[in-house]
Amino acid sequence: MRGFGMHAINDVGWIEKERPSCGPLDAIIRPTIVAPCSSDTHMSHGGSGPKTDLILGHEAVGIVDEVGESVHKIKVGDYVAVPCVTPDWTELGVQNFHSFSHDTGMFGSFKFLGVKDGVMAEYFHVNMADANLSIIPEGVSPEAALMTVDMMSTGFHGAELCEIKAGDTVVVIGIGPVGLMAIAGAALFGAGRIIAVGTRPKAMEVATAFGASEFISYKEGPVLDQVMARTGGKGPHKVIIAGGDANTFTEAVTMARPGGIISNINYFDVRDTLGFPALNWGLGMADKDIRGSFCPGGAERINRLLDMIKYGRIDPTLMISHKFEGFDKLPEAFDLMDKKAPDLIKPVVYLT
Amino acid sequence: MRGFGMHAINDVGWIEKERPSCGPLDAIIRPTIVAPCSSDTHMSHGGSGPKTDLILGHEAVGIVDEVGESVHKIKVGDYVAVPCVTPDWTELGVQNFHSFSHDTGMFGSFKFLGVKDGVMAEYFHVNMADANLSIIPEGVSPEAALMTVDMMSTGFHGAELCEIKAGDTVVVIGIGPVGLMAIAGAALFGAGRIIAVGTRPKAMEVATAFGASEFISYKEGPVLDQVMARTGGKGPHKVIIAGGDANTFTEAVTMARPGGIISNINYFDVRDTLGFPALNWGLGMADKDIRGSFCPGGAERINRLLDMIKYGRIDPTLMISHKFEGFDKLPEAFDLMDKKAPDLIKPVVYLT
Amino acid sequence: MRGFGMHAINDVGWIEKERPSCGPLDAIIRPTIVAPCSSDTHMSHGGSGPKTDLILGHEAVGIVDEVGESVHKIKVGDYVAVPCVTPDWTELGVQNFHSFSHDTGMFGSFKFLGVKDGVMAEYFHVNMADANLSIIPEGVSPEAALMTVDMMSTGFHGAELCEIKAGDTVVVIGIGPVGLMAIAGAALFGAGRIIAVGTRPKAMEVATAFGASEFISYKEGPVLDQVMARTGGKGPHKVIIAGGDANTFTEAVTMARPGGIISNINYFDVRDTLGFPALNWGLGMADKDIRGSFCPGGAERINRLLDMIKYGRIDPTLMISHKFEGFDKLPEAFDLMDKKAPDLIKPVVYLT
Amino acid sequence: MRGFGMHAINDVGWIEKERPSCGPLDAIIRPTIVAPCSSDTHMSHGGSGPKTDLILGHEAVGIVDEVGESVHKIKVGDYVAVPCVTPDWTELGVQNFHSFSHDTGMFGSFKFLGVKDGVMAEYFHVNMADANLSIIPEGVSPEAALMTVDMMSTGFHGAELCEIKAGDTVVVIGIGPVGLMAIAGAALFGAGRIIAVGTRPKAMEVATAFGASEFISYKEGPVLDQVMARTGGKGPHKVIIAGGDANTFTEAVTMARPGGIISNINYFDVRDTLGFPALNWGLGMADKDIRGSFCPGGAERINRLLDMIKYGRIDPTLMISHKFEGFDKLPEAFDLMDKKAPDLIKPVVYLT
Repeated sequence: MRGFGMHAINDVGWIEKERPSCGPLDAIIRPTIVAPCSSDTHMSHGGSGPKTDLILGHEAVGIVDEVGESVHKIKVGDYVAVPCVTPDWTELGVQNFHSFSHDTGMFGSFKFLGVKDGVMAEYFHVNMADANLSIIPEGVSPEAALMTVDMMSTGFHGAELCEIKAGDTVVVIGIGPVGLMAIAGAALFGAGRIIAVGTRPKAMEVATAFGASEFISYKEGPVLDQVMARTGGKGPHKVIIAGGDANTFTEAVTMARPGGIISNINYFDVRDTLGFPALNWGLGMADKDIRGSFCPGGAERINRLLDMIKYGRIDPTLMISHKFEGFDKLPEAFDLMDKKAPDLIKPVVYLT
Repeated sequence: MRGFGMHAINDVGWIEKERPSCGPLDAIIRPTIVAPCSSDTHMSHGGSGPKTDLILGHEAVGIVDEVGESVHKIKVGDYVAVPCVTPDWTELGVQNFHSFSHDTGMFGSFKFLGVKDGVMAEYFHVNMADANLSIIPEGVSPEAALMTVDMMSTGFHGAELCEIKAGDTVVVIGIGPVGLMAIAGAALFGAGRIIAVGTRPKAMEVATAFGASEFISYKEGPVLDQVMARTGGKGPHKVIIAGGDANTFTEAVTMARPGGIISNINYFDVRDTLGFPALNWGLGMADKDIRGSFCPGGAERINRLLDMIKYGRIDPTLMISHKFEGFDKLPEAFDLMDKKAPDLIKPVVYLT
Repeated sequence: MRGFGMHAINDVGWIEKERPSCGPLDAIIRPTIVAPCSSDTHMSHGGSGPKTDLILGHEAVGIVDEVGESVHKIKVGDYVAVPCVTPDWTELGVQNFHSFSHDTGMFGSFKFLGVKDGVMAEYFHVNMADANLSIIPEGVSPEAALMTVDMMSTGFHGAELCEIKAGDTVVVIGIGPVGLMAIAGAALFGAGRIIAVGTRPKAMEVATAFGASEFISYKEGPVLDQVMARTGGKGPHKVIIAGGDANTFTEAVTMARPGGIISNINYFDVRDTLGFPALNWGLGMADKDIRGSFCPGGAERINRLLDMIKYGRIDPTLMISHKFEGFDKLPEAFDLMDKKAPDLIKPVVYLT
Repeated sequence: MRGFGMHAINDVGWIEKERPSCGPLDAIIRPTIVAPCSSDTHMSHGGSGPKTDLILGHEAVGIVDEVGESVHKIKVGDYVAVPCVTPDWTELGVQNFHSFSHDTGMFGSFKFLGVKDGVMAEYFHVNMADANLSIIPEGVSPEAALMTVDMMSTGFHGAELCEIKAGDTVVVIGIGPVGLMAIAGAALFGAGRIIAVGTRPKAMEVATAFGASEFISYKEGPVLDQVMARTGGKGPHKVIIAGGDANTFTEAVTMARPGGIISNINYFDVRDTLGFPALNWGLGMADKDIRGSFCPGGAERINRLLDMIKYGRIDPTLMISHKFEGFDKLPEAFDLMDKKAPDLIKPVVYLT
């Protein structure tokens, strides 16, 4: 079969491979729509070290093409959303952590790109199908379902991690697709004022639709100073980091008020050192919690997000800025994501 | 000064009293708008036992007329929202409970109607003004602020108590003003599907605006059966009881799925016995939590709700179905609340 | 192979069956020590309806005799503790609930006695061996490990459910083995004063060793009155129900102070109606949470309890009041549990 | 009256001042036993900037000498434990944060040494006496009560912050008095294995009595490497930082396993930069929470800790390594704390 991926660092293209085989608990999916993600392009540039002939992509919806003999609920022909994080539920890691993301150890539950090929192919493999595949319900479009498998789940988790209380003032740093979903999540989980940090006009428009109250531009001075000025020197109750660099981290810790929570869903660079002067953290005693997590795994999570779409709480397709038709457009869509055009939020590719 | 209240059980009318005096930490408020509540009418019929010459009312906004010598932040002339629950913050009860409602013991923080006169008067007293009064911010109307002091705080608390997770299916039983706010709270804290139980057309319209997905009528068979049928036999994740009787309680416990939470913000009758067959509660082991609470106290709570209004998360004035102009209309508004006309949700009275 | 169980209601005895077969993810265990439990005797009398030729028992340690082809960590010959609750981790129920007890629905994760034979046999079957079997670590005796699989896990869960805060006053009703473990759990999770309700001298001795501060006897008047008198009319912060009947439930709800939690780990009778006057629950608003749960499932839970034994936090073998040697002693041990001799706490049977 | 404190940086000695005056809600205390703390000596060296003629000390028990006219529960002659953190309960900060430590802003609730004189004097002042003073109950010695007001409350809070689950492996870094109380707290809140980092023999002995399972020495190589080796490369579930420097912080973040919590109760130096390579924190996504807090404020907290002593859960007087008799011994005790003799844990001074 044909797939799109990286032959080596900075060398992407078509890859020919065997159709994956299906274990007794597993399924083989024929994807219908996929979405390239910055994690894919990041990896193609060596962000996770050298890789050889690896099919990329981890956001897909599609049709179940085959199931293993011990799969009881998912059936061939089901139209499913595929969580980008698919835990091995026999591992003890899932019995400890709410996010289910670290089955065998750090990030263990993220199988695509890690221990196996991704979804930008004619077929791909999903482990433990009954626990890791969500049938798309009536009333939810495949495009909307596609947005749940990583962007919505990750962005919402940023809001969940900071345990928003009714009326919290929340700063969201970054208005890429994950930041936009963090804004939506903050609004949906009870925030009052939501201050977004970002400057792209198209993304600002979508952010407003998702609940942002106002915007701060990196270009008009230090974000920290602007946030403190707007909050009367008190700082926000909660800060969600969905973009930026090590300095962003320091600013986020500094701006949160005592008792606040800083939640990170940004992917820092391996070369970053995250640091902050002790004083900003109250010499260690300011009751400012610092958290950081990964997209939660499993089908139940996605089922819940699909319900939020079905019952009209959110329309994540507002994020889809570019649509491509046909399997052959994968390279073009990937390239667009890689270059991050100013009007880009999220591209999708209809494979069939 | 003049006030409206109960001379005795089932005997309401005007009451002439001395203007209350102001302790060192306290304030005297001149109310501008008040809202009668079913707790007031309930009390007038003896719901809390006999009372003599008690001014009723516990929902008000108004102007600060006097402050004690130890009050540092609240000033004469401030336009304030007055939480209906005003804890004595020197009591140890507030150091234990999140809701701050039980300062000296059960309901101790509810001072109006309990240990002193209510707010339907020319002036009323508030203990510990700095901790218990919220200045109404720019961008929030007095009418909207008035909705926070009991209805919005209590209704939202029903949703908070059941710890809604992203995409939960929530049943809200009752669509009076507290139920409507529970629906809004459920939607604002992350619910997916919200099934409301109630039949009044005007309230159904407002419930839909606040996020109800669908309605069940008491008149079309047992609520329990209808809920189970609509949820494929699984039942909802969460149930909020905002109306009904002892049988409602039994149905709510029964319908919740294992791992679910039943949260009560209804005021049961002292003669009720709340009961459920052990089987419905998994012989005691079904992981169905049963909670019930009271309007949380203090100014910070109200400040947060005011921010939710200011930043456009909700417009609680949709609940105001009747407006009365003038102090002399208090009896008429009270009578309307007492009789619960079919198109009544919440009446307000402009005193000045 | 030979097993001990119920031929029909009130008819227990030896049962001859085929050795169970082992699925790809499963294991077959040869038990070395088992402990009869009151749930077994309860079932033999029809507590869960009619059953035919069902091998009883759900508390065992033993040697792994066979593993399926997809089992990677557990090996033949491992000496393991077997959780009495063994979820099917492919079911979505486990992705929602902390206790993992309701995989397919209420109690679904409790496989023994429910969907298959129990452990009082030459061999028994365990589903998903890698996720549901705990290798007994060095420093923990098999007898101690045996106490973790139900008694310690269930009793501790009673304490966990009521979220003990430093210095809480806790009432534990019942000092059978589960109640004793609830007492130990309360002490290990931060309680101050622990008031135990029970009268058996042997159990009182063990309760004291596990942390009970004092005892109340059912025989000296209503437990409710005695608790209120001893707590200066305030009642305890937390109540754990580990025994008793429907009236016990009412007393527990009544005695808890506002903001308190009542946690149930008792198995009520299907014919019970659990009820309480509304006034005792603050007309629904007293912030008294009522919870009830089941033994948490999975290997990680047991691993943690084994560590608590290994590092000397508790010695659960203090509960072992009777020891039987040999497979043939199963009927005698079962009969002892059924009759609940006054000096009985927990019997164990060494099968080999 | 006479007090002991700092005339200026690095200049301690006797100070003559007026007896403090008592506001309507306040009390004046005549201390009977005080304990110097390293926060006092730290301050004397300019740790919080220049101070002039400030009486030091914030750990005391004593006799109530005077109460304000609005104090209703505390009476002259009561023997009380005085929390080192005494919030102003009219401030809104206490309505938001569980620790109550930041009433008006960061650390606002810490009044001693901050906005007023400390306790090493013939008399000292306590704000809001009814909410901030704990009467020492029968069965608790004054020395034991003295240990609750800062050491036990702070150390236990380190354990509370990391939300210990049954059987967690916990590393406690530092075995000074706060570290010792963190060890005791970890054991009392459910830890399994407790690995303590420290080398002083006297403190190790007390740490063992409080529940430490084993010890790691700074002198035998990097603490991080030793912890990873002892935990099979997995790291602990929880880490409590109760000593050390900026490098300790980095090691603590690194060693915690995914899903773990790092809790800090150490007082970092204002010149420290706390930093960690992004990789150690899973590029921001490892689900390692980082928390840091301050001694919780108010009387209820202390009442609970006094109950834990009364009911035999802990004997904090094991930490008292040195006793001094007489007011005149304050300088000697202070000097001992300043120099941190090898056999020092906690000194106390009997003033009368």
